[in-house]
Amino acid sequence: MEKLTRNSRISAITRILTDNPNRIISFNYFSELLNSAKSTISEDMVIVKDTMEKMNFGKVLTIAGAAGGVKYIPDISIESKKEFAEEICRLLKDKSRVVPGNFIYMTDIMFKPRVVSMAGVILASHFYDKDVDYVVTVETKGVPLAYEVAKNLGVQLVTVRRENKVTEGPTVSINYVSGSSGRIQNMSLARRSLNKGSKCIFIDDFMRAGGTAKGIKDLLNEFESELVGIGVLVESVSAGRKLVEERISILEFDSVDDEGNINMRISPSYS
Amino acid sequence: MEKLTRNSRISAITRILTDNPNRIISFNYFSELLNSAKSTISEDMVIVKDTMEKMNFGKVLTIAGAAGGVKYIPDISIESKKEFAEEICRLLKDKSRVVPGNFIYMTDIMFKPRVVSMAGVILASHFYDKDVDYVVTVETKGVPLAYEVAKNLGVQLVTVRRENKVTEGPTVSINYVSGSSGRIQNMSLARRSLNKGSKCIFIDDFMRAGGTAKGIKDLLNEFESELVGIGVLVESVSAGRKLVEERISILEFDSVDDEGNINMRISPSYS
Repeated sequence: MEKLTRNSRISAITRILTDNPNRIISFNYFSELLNSAKSTISEDMVIVKDTMEKMNFGKVLTIAGAAGGVKYIPDISIESKKEFAEEICRLLKDKSRVVPGNFIYMTDIMFKPRVVSMAGVILASHFYDKDVDYVVTVETKGVPLAYEVAKNLGVQLVTVRRENKVTEGPTVSINYVSGSSGRIQNMSLARRSLNKGSKCIFIDDFMRAGGTAKGIKDLLNEFESELVGIGVLVESVSAGRKLVEERISILEFDSVDDEGNINMRISPSYS
Repeated sequence: MEKLTRNSRISAITRILTDNPNRIISFNYFSELLNSAKSTISEDMVIVKDTMEKMNFGKVLTIAGAAGGVKYIPDISIESKKEFAEEICRLLKDKSRVVPGNFIYMTDIMFKPRVVSMAGVILASHFYDKDVDYVVTVETKGVPLAYEVAKNLGVQLVTVRRENKVTEGPTVSINYVSGSSGRIQNMSLARRSLNKGSKCIFIDDFMRAGGTAKGIKDLLNEFESELVGIGVLVESVSAGRKLVEERISILEFDSVDDEGNINMRISPSYS
């Protein structure tokens, strides 16, 4: 291809990095694609790196060695995180969202790409140093959010099912006790979906007492794998005894009062 | 914020456009964020636009008028589409993927962000001119793909459930006949998840005779909404009479032969 100007190379490099979070891309790749010397690409990269940091768009890391190159770690400023959390809190506190049983209807939010992609960047930013192999979720509402977290971490998503499917091949199933209702439920995962000895994080839309998270932990044990973190959009803080301790949440839900007002607030880490 | 150089502004603009496909972003927004005159941003935008087109990364469109600005329509070259289709075909033809009942295990592929995001760009590119209001899918394997298509189209995702959930509020349920098994199944959708008079496309991982798609069409009728397109990663071409006619697919699956070989190929539009 024809030689590009520095401006164009920088636009192209930014586009490629943004689209490939947490994946190492070699200088050779850029050099061939953009028909430019590696030294030129290095100079371009300094500008992209500086811009990302100045704009609070995350970091571009240089990885040395034979498998080296650069990788882009997306992030946003703490102010933007707070602003986002406040916006979602406002959306979710709408009284018309209360459905019978005092549940909050949040399905539309969990399937809104602009919200999910932002929440994905925020939750992922807590796990960059955890050396995560898989992001695990349970069907269905949390799937897009968990997918975005997996994408930002550059790893595979694994979705635990509520029932066996013929297309999954051999599966491992466990029973677990839902922390809030006390009911026994089932979850299953295809035998081939996870390598032994993996480090996993669990991502979901909403967490009450943490029965599902506890179930996931037990299920991962069956794969000789470990749960190293939990991230949710909303956690319920009124659910009494917690079955799992540490978790990251963006919002805290307390209760719905007698007038149907939703008591919800930004989690302490963002306020 | 301090003034940025043209190089830095171009990197920042590219990052923001890439992250917000099909959303109109005003020149004012860029002008304020980057502390630069609108005329300067316009000049930057010409460079970003040219680069995107030269690199086959899609288009940057200028929208005139009061609500005007620019929007980015992601795409990739036809050669990259073909290359991608060939790679996925190779991955899926692995004999070890055949599970009892001659189904192909493709769950890992449908939850792999690098694959799903590429397939999402490809499928979305067929629907940019359809004025789509919602992307509809059915739980669970197709959710990340449908999410990516929705993100690229800049619209909301809607996920049809196999069973009612207490967190959904009032739902509309229909029964439908699975085209390949002939079994009667149920699908349901929250009453508030869709506005009347909407144009929808259905995205899924795999399509046999199209019973599910037919069910979605009927379900959308209950919402006085219309199915204007169908896109799947893999369609089965051996399933006999098709219940729905037009669909876009990336791969065609024929059958598994007696030796366990998977007959699969790239769909005609990409070969």
